[in-house]
Amino acid sequence: MERNRVVIIGAVALGPKVACRLKRLRPDFDVLMIDQDEYISYGGCGMPYFISGDISDVRELMSTSFHMERTPKFFEDAKDVRVMIRTRALAIDRDARTVLVRSLSGGLEEQIPYDRLVLATGSLPNRLPIPGSDLPGVVSLSNLQSAVAIKERISRGEVEKAVIIGAGAIGCEMAEALTDLWGIETSVVEIADQVLPVILDPGLARMVGQHMEEKGVGLYLDEAVREITTENDGGALRVVTSRRTLDADLVIASVGVRPNSQLAAEAGLLVSPRGGIVVNRRLQTSDPHIYAGGDCIETMHLVTGKPVFFPQGSLANRQGRVIGTNLAGGYASFNGVVGSFSIKIFDLAVASTGIPRATAAMEGYDAVNALVVQADRAHFFPTQDLMYLQLTVDRKTRRILGSQGIGHNGDAVVGRINSIAAMLPYRPVLEDLSNMEVAYSPPFASALDIVNAAANNAENILDGYNKPIDADEFRRCFLEEKADDMVCLDVRAPANAGPFVERFGDRWVNIPQETLRQRLNDVPADKRLLVVCNSGVRSYEALRQLEHAGICSAVNIQGGIAALKKSGLLDADDQGEDR
Amino acid sequence: MERNRVVIIGAVALGPKVACRLKRLRPDFDVLMIDQDEYISYGGCGMPYFISGDISDVRELMSTSFHMERTPKFFEDAKDVRVMIRTRALAIDRDARTVLVRSLSGGLEEQIPYDRLVLATGSLPNRLPIPGSDLPGVVSLSNLQSAVAIKERISRGEVEKAVIIGAGAIGCEMAEALTDLWGIETSVVEIADQVLPVILDPGLARMVGQHMEEKGVGLYLDEAVREITTENDGGALRVVTSRRTLDADLVIASVGVRPNSQLAAEAGLLVSPRGGIVVNRRLQTSDPHIYAGGDCIETMHLVTGKPVFFPQGSLANRQGRVIGTNLAGGYASFNGVVGSFSIKIFDLAVASTGIPRATAAMEGYDAVNALVVQADRAHFFPTQDLMYLQLTVDRKTRRILGSQGIGHNGDAVVGRINSIAAMLPYRPVLEDLSNMEVAYSPPFASALDIVNAAANNAENILDGYNKPIDADEFRRCFLEEKADDMVCLDVRAPANAGPFVERFGDRWVNIPQETLRQRLNDVPADKRLLVVCNSGVRSYEALRQLEHAGICSAVNIQGGIAALKKSGLLDADDQGEDR
Repeated sequence: MERNRVVIIGAVALGPKVACRLKRLRPDFDVLMIDQDEYISYGGCGMPYFISGDISDVRELMSTSFHMERTPKFFEDAKDVRVMIRTRALAIDRDARTVLVRSLSGGLEEQIPYDRLVLATGSLPNRLPIPGSDLPGVVSLSNLQSAVAIKERISRGEVEKAVIIGAGAIGCEMAEALTDLWGIETSVVEIADQVLPVILDPGLARMVGQHMEEKGVGLYLDEAVREITTENDGGALRVVTSRRTLDADLVIASVGVRPNSQLAAEAGLLVSPRGGIVVNRRLQTSDPHIYAGGDCIETMHLVTGKPVFFPQGSLANRQGRVIGTNLAGGYASFNGVVGSFSIKIFDLAVASTGIPRATAAMEGYDAVNALVVQADRAHFFPTQDLMYLQLTVDRKTRRILGSQGIGHNGDAVVGRINSIAAMLPYRPVLEDLSNMEVAYSPPFASALDIVNAAANNAENILDGYNKPIDADEFRRCFLEEKADDMVCLDVRAPANAGPFVERFGDRWVNIPQETLRQRLNDVPADKRLLVVCNSGVRSYEALRQLEHAGICSAVNIQGGIAALKKSGLLDADDQGEDR
Repeated sequence: MERNRVVIIGAVALGPKVACRLKRLRPDFDVLMIDQDEYISYGGCGMPYFISGDISDVRELMSTSFHMERTPKFFEDAKDVRVMIRTRALAIDRDARTVLVRSLSGGLEEQIPYDRLVLATGSLPNRLPIPGSDLPGVVSLSNLQSAVAIKERISRGEVEKAVIIGAGAIGCEMAEALTDLWGIETSVVEIADQVLPVILDPGLARMVGQHMEEKGVGLYLDEAVREITTENDGGALRVVTSRRTLDADLVIASVGVRPNSQLAAEAGLLVSPRGGIVVNRRLQTSDPHIYAGGDCIETMHLVTGKPVFFPQGSLANRQGRVIGTNLAGGYASFNGVVGSFSIKIFDLAVASTGIPRATAAMEGYDAVNALVVQADRAHFFPTQDLMYLQLTVDRKTRRILGSQGIGHNGDAVVGRINSIAAMLPYRPVLEDLSNMEVAYSPPFASALDIVNAAANNAENILDGYNKPIDADEFRRCFLEEKADDMVCLDVRAPANAGPFVERFGDRWVNIPQETLRQRLNDVPADKRLLVVCNSGVRSYEALRQLEHAGICSAVNIQGGIAALKKSGLLDADDQGEDR
């Protein structure tokens, strides 16, 4: 049999999945995994939870669900997969079909023959291109050893202050890990003007950042780190940004990762300009005897139709199965990603799929964001909580390009985003989402569920019935510029509107929506009206009634007072319980 | 304007949605809602939670999210919609375009003209066709008054024992409501041999029934109620079934509902053999001036392609918006349902979409059920819990026909089912679900999430790699028939298998999976082998290794010990923590 010697370089996520799937289909194959590390097959995404203490023992990240450690011996005994750890792959000879490896223990080099090769080399953390980035105490969360080292330092009480550079996923998770359970004074410095850049649009990002600040994280956005200095080697660090200097006992650099494709490139395999190994849908590289998957490849974005680098442990697992099937002689394909993302940041769940408006705009779409704030189940059900769900839609085709949501009932948020993600490969338009069938009962959904409401709201905006402004526009126009000709028309009950009228005087007018048609004369129709209620529903109703009365200068504050408060634009003690 | 007088018959769910949507688009229209009841626009699906006490005040079911009661005055003030309550529609004169109505207060009759009419007449509870079904104390949960009456009786301490007839959705919710918070000794009698018939396949239904019994509900399946008797009027009741007699102070009949389409039929509108008003995709009846939606219509099942009666408050809301848009001169359509369902029963969430295997078989599919038991998020994340997720797949085309799930983290279960439901209109095959993109992070998903694992498992079964038997077959063959030539091969650790070996003796053999290849001689290869682990994953691995060794008589117990325990087939104290 010519194809039965399979060598897999990398044994963290994709590699083990390939090996196990392949051996189940073809127990007669000879499968060898090589990894330069000592730890293999671990849940790298769990590292922040190990550091936080949610997971007490690092071995849990290396264990199966039935509590067996996934050691080389486990793979050999349970899976009949051979493993060489602490072994680095140095070069691939594609003609000879061999991999040159070197043992990191003894230094011994050998040529390992293969019939089929799998590259599962993963990603590498980006380095900070600044002075001091290699000082002791400046670390990245690149592997299990680094996680163990960080936790050991914390456990020994050596970390009172920490600075995290980068407010991407790892940075935000680490901010929670350090602050929440260890009480470390933690600052996050981010060069973009928002947390989770590229993933979230600024509106929801502001809410997330606000939540982090409320939890005690020092958040410094729109600030570049210039250098990291120290007085004495191994001592306290100083992080110098474009605006300030922050003391730190520990600096975590989390400024993204890049595909680890050097080996592939040196072997002459096709690698994209951004560094991802180029593969076809069967996950074969430009050499059909060599497969690749996981963080080291580039894949297709099913919304933009363009190549994308999207490193996620889940993709590695799914792609691993595809490669395993194909190696066994079956036919499986991986068509691409819709870009789904989720993260827990303190009490908040954040999830997204598709592309944010900023990306959509770059791709040439006339993209519109529509935000809905609604209970995540029947509003009369005791465990209900508000969810903030945004859709990004192409104005011309009404195609749904993406969605982002936050809320405190995490599974409820992620469940909605997953449902939208499940449709995205089919290029849904708004009407499809408006009719999406959410399994209804009061403990789990609203009769008109928030995903349907989000589509309806976007439709109302595109049809010109709803004219929204978002929290950021409210901040600029109303709070900062304080434009004279602008008045907030608060259509809630007087008890809710009262404190705002007191605070903003003539600029805040209260006419409850149910009295609006009778009180049209009280509406300051010569002003630009910002209509507001608690969530944006009654204000939309009011907008329609104003327009029917010939008052067309009004716009609706999307998500209402709830969104403004969540964005940190109103004091926490402002009335807002009543929605 | 000819079309601007709109009359809506029925003001609970669909009616108000039509009215409000229409008025927002066309404030100039004259919209009148008519309802025979005093209460309108209430959340009927919340009634069990009102009775249980989760919701303390019945007015919460009639209130907006901003705590305004949706009374006729509210609709008139806030929505400019006129409402006539306690007014019954008696007849429709389609030629004259009038509705004859009678006031239930004064008895006055009048003809109300319309340009467009909307039928939102809802459903009627099926009556029990047995003697005694009209005795005092025998009630159905047909409207808010009945819910209030039941709760009043309970609150006065008049109900110590209750019998619920029918283990459908309402029956199961009411069993929880009466048992959990009020401590009422509650029995449920169901003529089918499972709870939630038609909705769930027997496997998961058994798990749900088991949970109800553990919570103290007396569950009598496969029993018909013959009659209800009483000693003295208003006194204690006796429910006589085909097998026993149950005492009751309260009997709740929840034996399904049927479309309330009499008015439509009498007006000569097309009504289906099963009683649903026939509508097109724009939700027009056979008279294009008359629309209908909600529980009184028949719609299309998008999986079977056949008409279906699917009464759900969520459909009424979505259909109401479609009708409102169309009445306003827009173009909206409702294409049908995929049959999504969810319910909370005590601590368990149950959700389903598509069709169960029994229905699929009747439709002519060669349908296969594949069950996966897996953590609902990263197995190392503290809040993880087991989820039981089943797929129903057509063997020939690999098309996904339906899915059912249960678990204790309700939003997690419902979120998975919603994601599958979102794909169903696009007629997905297994590979689509295998690659479905779940937003991954350890707090919310597994790296290979349970929905992907479910598809992979089904694929392995169809490909012949996995040969499953389900819990019921295990019960029949192993526990009841005790076939001599049948042996359970337990591939877990000795600590887990030990109690079973002790209990079943020679019929339970323990060979841990990771030692199997070395101990093939210990395998009783001449027997029919039921391979088992805690969830079905290691046993699948073992199955593959046995087959490679030429031992092909083995099958895999789907869902492993976890499924057997959840089904009540093993003692609760059997070891099973280790998965």
